[in-house]
Amino acid sequence: MAHDIRIVTETELRQAVGLDLQTVDVIEKAFLALASGRVVMPPIMSMELEETGGEVDAKTAYIPGFDSFALKVSTGFYGNADLGLPSLSGLMMLFSAKTGLVEAVFLDNGYLTDIRTAAAGAVAARHLAPAEVRTAGVIGTGLQARLQIEAAHLVRPFPRVLVHGRNPAKAAACAADLARSLGIEAGVTPDAETLVRQSQLVVTTTPAREPVLMADWLHPGLHVTAMGSDADYKNEIEAGALARADLYVCDRVSQCEALGELRSARAAGVWSGATPPELGEIIAGGHPGRRTEADITICDLTGTGAQDTAIATHVNAIPGVEGTVITA
Amino acid sequence: MAHDIRIVTETELRQAVGLDLQTVDVIEKAFLALASGRVVMPPIMSMELEETGGEVDAKTAYIPGFDSFALKVSTGFYGNADLGLPSLSGLMMLFSAKTGLVEAVFLDNGYLTDIRTAAAGAVAARHLAPAEVRTAGVIGTGLQARLQIEAAHLVRPFPRVLVHGRNPAKAAACAADLARSLGIEAGVTPDAETLVRQSQLVVTTTPAREPVLMADWLHPGLHVTAMGSDADYKNEIEAGALARADLYVCDRVSQCEALGELRSARAAGVWSGATPPELGEIIAGGHPGRRTEADITICDLTGTGAQDTAIATHVNAIPGVEGTVITA
Repeated sequence: MAHDIRIVTETELRQAVGLDLQTVDVIEKAFLALASGRVVMPPIMSMELEETGGEVDAKTAYIPGFDSFALKVSTGFYGNADLGLPSLSGLMMLFSAKTGLVEAVFLDNGYLTDIRTAAAGAVAARHLAPAEVRTAGVIGTGLQARLQIEAAHLVRPFPRVLVHGRNPAKAAACAADLARSLGIEAGVTPDAETLVRQSQLVVTTTPAREPVLMADWLHPGLHVTAMGSDADYKNEIEAGALARADLYVCDRVSQCEALGELRSARAAGVWSGATPPELGEIIAGGHPGRRTEADITICDLTGTGAQDTAIATHVNAIPGVEGTVITA
Repeated sequence: MAHDIRIVTETELRQAVGLDLQTVDVIEKAFLALASGRVVMPPIMSMELEETGGEVDAKTAYIPGFDSFALKVSTGFYGNADLGLPSLSGLMMLFSAKTGLVEAVFLDNGYLTDIRTAAAGAVAARHLAPAEVRTAGVIGTGLQARLQIEAAHLVRPFPRVLVHGRNPAKAAACAADLARSLGIEAGVTPDAETLVRQSQLVVTTTPAREPVLMADWLHPGLHVTAMGSDADYKNEIEAGALARADLYVCDRVSQCEALGELRSARAAGVWSGATPPELGEIIAGGHPGRRTEADITICDLTGTGAQDTAIATHVNAIPGVEGTVITA
């Protein structure tokens, strides 16, 4: 039956919503909802196209009390750089939770995913990082490295950031961008260890298949957010680090044990038995978070459909996001 | 990066593509591709919204040699009838298999799913039904009951159809519609057994959770297509029927054993061991199909992402399907 569907472009979405404390609060509510146990969130649908070096993920979640739910498709095609195209793209759809009818299609080319992913990093930092962060570090030099540091800076306004990446020129460009966007001191380190040892907050944002952050580098008063691993062949954090930390937290245990650092730690035999807490439980107060400034904490973010439903519902309610209405 | 995306409405799609032999051939090619073993087709993503009686499915598949792949979202909200809305809806997206960029969004409200599902029934009938079908029967009275019979009639032009449903008025309306659309004799039967005993081709199109077709009713020269079960709580065919048939065929074994009649048969302990053939293998000639006119055959259709990629790619290539081009 014909009904109105709003089609909104990336340009319109960028004008409507950005990476700010309001967005962080929206994503924090998604984690809180996950802790309620009433969110319906099926396993991620994932497809690899070996012939073209592409991967496709679909995520969805229904959050009780929300009038709509999102279904998001992310694509990552790593040959795109050679074509002058960004590797990551995708779109989000919003459906009525009452009728299932499509309400809106956000042709965001991955923009909403970018900011909801960065906002999740800020939520983790807000609830797990030490109160005082003098230096933040990021391992990885892509768009998400910049966004994670910008997001973390919203909740821990550190005066200094360090960047490390395999490609020194890209690391320097990332540091320069962050110095400009945040107005803080920004430098690069030739090795990841120096970065970790000098930082109180570290974010890893790589597609690494071998650890880029070692257990021996952990030091009192460090928080690490590992947001790179989202596949069963990815691994950023040395397995021993999870057991050595005072607290290891998942965004969603069922995802982290399939796609995150928990998978690698279990495979290495260094994490047995106990189910780690989820970020939402920490926020809700159902599980203790950081107990002292000297604690070592690690948060493992694989990205959840609940974040997608939260950001898409939020964007849909912003006045002035008109888009193109199509009757279909 | 901004690129052109075509948005096509249900009305435009209905003008461009219908249920005809060309569509049946397109879907047959999808099954043939599945038999090649080179299609990438992840498990269906499924979400149930108990609070609103809704279910959401997402399917996708990459078929080698195709420039694009589809990802399709289907919604079924069974309280919609009370609101004067159709229960089933959804949309299809087409992505470049080379870059992952969104190429088109088909706001079809489930129309393309309806016809690709019916077309699969025709493919099954073409390859498995006896050469001569004098009477076809359908158990179920919804839109898909009509479409399945119209599709089967394209490949087996039977002069008579029987309809059975729990609601006699709906069965009569379905029969009247089929008499009109196909110009053939159409009647209703008060019980399903009479329908099955009088038919050479039977299609079950119900959301039944208990069998609506019993093993004892099977008779020489019968072909049954069971297309209703697509969830782990649905079951249309009595378990014993699968073992009693001369040939039982899946659209996709991995899906039928999780969501189709094979799941029920295995749960009942009447199907052990041997993996049944897939429809594509029958089409490709890799597995024998019907051997004699007296054989009893059953085909279990759960619906595959390959069908979605095939129909969406086909529609996208039809000249004149312009839609609305949005640069996003």
